[in-house]
Amino acid sequence: MKIAQVAPLYESVPPRLYGGTERIISFLADGLVEAGHDVTLFASGDSTTRAALAATRDCALRLDPNPPTSAIAAHLAQLHEVRRRASEFDVIHFHLSHFLHFPFFEDIAWKTVTTPHGRLDYRDLAGAYGLWPRFPMISISNNQRLPLAGANWLATIHHGLPARPHSQPQWNGEGGYLAFLGRVSRDKRPDRAIEIALRSGYRLRIAAKIGDDDQHYFRETVEPLVDGTNVEFIGEIGEAEKDEFLGKATALLFPIDWPEPFGLAVIEAMSVGTPVVAWNCGATGEIVDDETGAVVDTIEAAVVAVHRVARLDRARIRAVFERRFGAERMVGQYADAYARLLAMHGA
Amino acid sequence: MKIAQVAPLYESVPPRLYGGTERIISFLADGLVEAGHDVTLFASGDSTTRAALAATRDCALRLDPNPPTSAIAAHLAQLHEVRRRASEFDVIHFHLSHFLHFPFFEDIAWKTVTTPHGRLDYRDLAGAYGLWPRFPMISISNNQRLPLAGANWLATIHHGLPARPHSQPQWNGEGGYLAFLGRVSRDKRPDRAIEIALRSGYRLRIAAKIGDDDQHYFRETVEPLVDGTNVEFIGEIGEAEKDEFLGKATALLFPIDWPEPFGLAVIEAMSVGTPVVAWNCGATGEIVDDETGAVVDTIEAAVVAVHRVARLDRARIRAVFERRFGAERMVGQYADAYARLLAMHGA
Repeated sequence: MKIAQVAPLYESVPPRLYGGTERIISFLADGLVEAGHDVTLFASGDSTTRAALAATRDCALRLDPNPPTSAIAAHLAQLHEVRRRASEFDVIHFHLSHFLHFPFFEDIAWKTVTTPHGRLDYRDLAGAYGLWPRFPMISISNNQRLPLAGANWLATIHHGLPARPHSQPQWNGEGGYLAFLGRVSRDKRPDRAIEIALRSGYRLRIAAKIGDDDQHYFRETVEPLVDGTNVEFIGEIGEAEKDEFLGKATALLFPIDWPEPFGLAVIEAMSVGTPVVAWNCGATGEIVDDETGAVVDTIEAAVVAVHRVARLDRARIRAVFERRFGAERMVGQYADAYARLLAMHGA
Repeated sequence: MKIAQVAPLYESVPPRLYGGTERIISFLADGLVEAGHDVTLFASGDSTTRAALAATRDCALRLDPNPPTSAIAAHLAQLHEVRRRASEFDVIHFHLSHFLHFPFFEDIAWKTVTTPHGRLDYRDLAGAYGLWPRFPMISISNNQRLPLAGANWLATIHHGLPARPHSQPQWNGEGGYLAFLGRVSRDKRPDRAIEIALRSGYRLRIAAKIGDDDQHYFRETVEPLVDGTNVEFIGEIGEAEKDEFLGKATALLFPIDWPEPFGLAVIEAMSVGTPVVAWNCGATGEIVDDETGAVVDTIEAAVVAVHRVARLDRARIRAVFERRFGAERMVGQYADAYARLLAMHGA
């Protein structure tokens, strides 16, 4: 198949730093090439891919050394180019959350598919979708669909990650701590993680980025609870360190307080055999089960769960990860969805 | 003429709080109705206008009581509706800065006109415009055009304000202070204003909003210099208080450090007879002259200028304002531009 992948321009593909969407697009584009498809990736010029790179902008917006930038104008120019070349592709796959591409492609919506990577409960999204109701959509969890339940959903395809080359089975939770990974923000509830750790008698290690918007929250709410012994803050860590940080943890705490449409950190933990104690919020209930962790609603339940999941079979968690959340499975499901899309239109 | 005005949805028209773009659109829409045109205003549903209001969203994005919102989706829905009704209008006037409307109207660009209200030196804007090069544009200053010099510019039309009903000629600068008005942000350089005031022997009164993004800057740079006597911070003020605040000031300081495409505060000061000492940056050189103030490049020149402009004839400044920066003049220029646009296409 001739497939166009259209990535947002905020980060390169894969992202140099934080950026789940662009990591997933990278695995998908490379995986489709691996599977023999002819893939063109529309992304910023500092991307690295096995697909043919079509760049309408030299570098990603967030790391542009020459601000100010216009995200809208940058994406309009990108979509103009995708449209100009549209006839070259059998399928055009958009990874934009806010439907900016709809007006460009309304007459060929049937050969496009859109994966929104963000939450869909923004006011305005359902109304806008209703004006372009034929666009085929793929959700990253069933939960993500709820605010847009009536859309033209083609499939739910959970994210996938490649097998972890750096992962060491012998890590096996040997650090004896609980892990918190990601961003320190009100929505991610590091304060809950701290309370769960203190009440369950485990140390907590927090490996997280503090964004500009979150400085105030960190200072007021989290920092006073960091004592360096029971609660340790180690800052942002890179991909390579992440596997060890997770692999040596007894469990990952994911006590979020927002409708997370997927939660990549959860499957990152599973990929190195580490169980997850997640709050029942957004998509966590679709991803975590009793074999791989626990989904809880209260601090008390989380404390009980920590002690239970500490005894789970970590090899089994890795096996579940490989079956349910591997990159190849994701790539195969997307290829099937593209084929179904074309079959529906006799292409 | 049948005219559509398309306002951004961030603030209502006029804005409840801060928002220069929406104030200008309000004066323009009402003024065109006054002049006998048939005007439809596409804006948020909490707008108040003499035109026919066409609202695709109940309230403005920034004050929406039910976040999160999607600005892109909200504007896509608005533009979809403008497009659906396009044949009803002779001219469609967009007040959007980032060209989101271009893909919707490319086949009828000739009967649209776009006033970008923001700076145009964003990377991405020139490239995007180049893909839709026929869209007729109106700049709010000649300086604003520079980063997009090759665009299809129809006219420069400076902003205009209605005569000031609350203005009292006897205010006459009687407060004996210098004024700083607007937002406390790094770009607006309140620190420069403080230095100019201290070195010229005048008190400075700062009437300004502190946005979320500017809290840190205010704490670090401005607050330590506020002593309540020589430098006073009085917070954000409303429209009614503004005239008195400006009218009693010896001069307005406008020592900006960014390519301001117009600078509404400058003509607000002039409207009540108060001279302006402005930094030579962006459009200030087109707006302020020796009769109405001074345009300077250094603190030293600003100090000299403060003493000179304090002796200017304030009645004359008001007269210049009425001739050059009144709302009727602005409305008339826009109506002329629309007529020229239609004449070019034999409409």
